Parts: sequence; C-alpha cells; structure tokens
Amino acid sequence: MEFQFDDALPVLRRTPVVLRELLLDLPGAWTGANEGPGTWSPFDVVGHLIHGERTDWMPRVEHLLRHGDTVPFPVFDREAMFAESQGLSLSELLDTLARSRTESLDRLMALGLTGTDLTRRGRHPEFGVVTLGQHLATWVAHDLSHVGQVVRVMARQYSTAVGPWQAYLPILGPKGPTENT
Amino acid sequence: MEFQFDDALPVLRRTPVVLRELLLDLPGAWTGANEGPGTWSPFDVVGHLIHGERTDWMPRVEHLLRHGDTVPFPVFDREAMFAESQGLSLSELLDTLARSRTESLDRLMALGLTGTDLTRRGRHPEFGVVTLGQHLATWVAHDLSHVGQVVRVMARQYSTAVGPWQAYLPILGPKGPTENT
Repeated sequence: MEFQFDDALPVLRRTPVVLRELLLDLPGAWTGANEGPGTWSPFDVVGHLIHGERTDWMPRVEHLLRHGDTVPFPVFDREAMFAESQGLSLSELLDTLARSRTESLDRLMALGLTGTDLTRRGRHPEFGVVTLGQHLATWVAHDLSHVGQVVRVMARQYSTAVGPWQAYLPILGPKGPTENT
Repeated sequence: MEFQFDDALPVLRRTPVVLRELLLDLPGAWTGANEGPGTWSPFDVVGHLIHGERTDWMPRVEHLLRHGDTVPFPVFDREAMFAESQGLSLSELLDTLARSRTESLDRLMALGLTGTDLTRRGRHPEFGVVTLGQHLATWVAHDLSHVGQVVRVMARQYSTAVGPWQAYLPILGPKGPTENT
C-alpha cells in the first residue's frame, strides 16, 4: 500500500482517542505494567508518543522542507519520556497527547502538501536519504506499533493466568519484538 | 498477575469501543487488508470476536457452572465469521459486537461470582481440565491479542512505504505470530 494522505490522516487522528479508550482510568496493574527490565509500560508508551510529537514528526517534516537532504534530522531521544513523564498522571499524558497530535496535524494540513511532495528528500542521521512519504508512513506505522505494544504488554500480564490457553495466544509468547523506538 | 474481576471487567468493557475508535469509517484499504492468504483482516477479526460472544465466552462459563469437568465445552469454530459476516458492513459488526459484549458482561455480573468460584473446574475439548479463572483470563488476553492483530495488519500495509525505517519497526517483520484463534 502506497502512502496517501487520505488513508494516513484518519489513522493519525485516532491514535490518542484509541489510547484514551484503552487506558484511561484502568487499574494501575495494567497501565504501569511492563515486560521486564528495560521494557516499557503503557504509561511509558504514551509519554514516548508525546515526545515524538514534540521533537520528531512535524519537526522533521519542517526540517526536511527547509533543508532537503543537506542537513540530517536531529537525533530522536527514544527514552526522553522517562524524565519528561515524571510526576504526571496518565490522564494528563493522554490529554497532552491528544492536544499535541491535533496541533501536529493542523501544522501538517497548513502546509498544503500534495502527492508530489512525498518524493521530497531529507537526510536521516542513520539511514541517509529518506523521503517525506517514508517519514509520514513511518509516523502511521509507529503509532500502530505502539498501540500493539500496549495491548501486548497488557495481555502478557495474564500469561500464567490463562493456563493451558497460552498455547493458543502467541501474543503471550516469552519473547516478542521490541518496539522501544 | 492473578485474574481478578476488578482488573478484567474494565478491559472487557472497552474492547468494542477501542475497535470502534480504531476502525469505524476508516478507508477499506485498512479495514479489508490482511497479511496474505489465510490471514484475517480487521473486518474478519471483528466478526470473530462476535462469534466468540455468541458461542464461547459466556456460553462456556455457563457450561462449566452446569457441568463442571464432566462434559467438555463444545468446540469453538474459529472461522465461523467468514460465513456469518457476509453481506454485513463493518459498522453493523461493530454495533453487534458492542451489544453482544454488553449482554455478555450483564450475564456475567448476574451470576454474582466471587474469587473462590475462579477455581471451579471445567473441561476443554483439547486441554482437559481448566478453571473458570483461566477461561476468564483468556477472554481478556484474547481481546487484547486481536486488537494487537488489527493494528499489526494495518501497520504492515506500510511495510514498503516506510522505506529504511522498517528496520526500527519490528511489527513490520515478514513473519508474525498468528492469532487466528
């Protein structure tokens, strides 16, 4: 499937709502749970998504439009939320994510980009030349990936509780992908 | 984490809402997409969850309370939705899932089960003796597993579109778990 604004925007708009419906006011046993040392809880994931709004998604779009592939994007700090989320409640984080995402999409719409802009080139600090379309598709896939992480982290809290049904639930498998990115 | 009603019920209540926010009115390129032959689309998953409400979750609770471990549960048809969902819209399926889930949880609450009931035994047609608590924990994990499947199927439609970022997104990996159960 090729990236198209009409497909991508509805998904990007929904992510904060989906996470709110999934997580708001849920017992802390779910929202604070993780998959072991070095892994993230649903609370951590929401903070990570906020940091992406602030420093990655639209900032890199604007960077690319300004500098093309001459200046690499600033490096993204994947774990900035461990400091930034301190002292905040999940409810506050969900509000911030919703507000930040709305602002991001307003900025994106205001640019009036078209399909031909998707081939515009930028420079990733690690990958080298990338396109605007690849960056925007990554925004969508990254959202979906972290929603998937949230439900997997939650499901795995019941790995033992499900007894023999574990065999039918690969999401509970001992080793999963790490989308701590 | 042990199964407890207070943890599990809010998750079970939210699944239809989460899927509605994620999928309703989304372009068919997302909701009808799958991961290749023999795999399920988000549309298929919603139908599968409806079939679970009708024939698995509360029916098996009631079966276990009636028969204990003397009579195995009827076998669950994992792919019944391919026939049952025919001619229906995703919007209709999401409505049906919401209504069915509310009815299921009303039936569950009406039973007035307590923590001690969780050790009551039933008989799974394949696993043999299982407990009510394991069955109920599986209901939760199964929901979360299929929400995870939906976002993974969607994300993978952009496996190529993200370009080099695929390396950062394990959800896009060529082979994933199959939770077609």
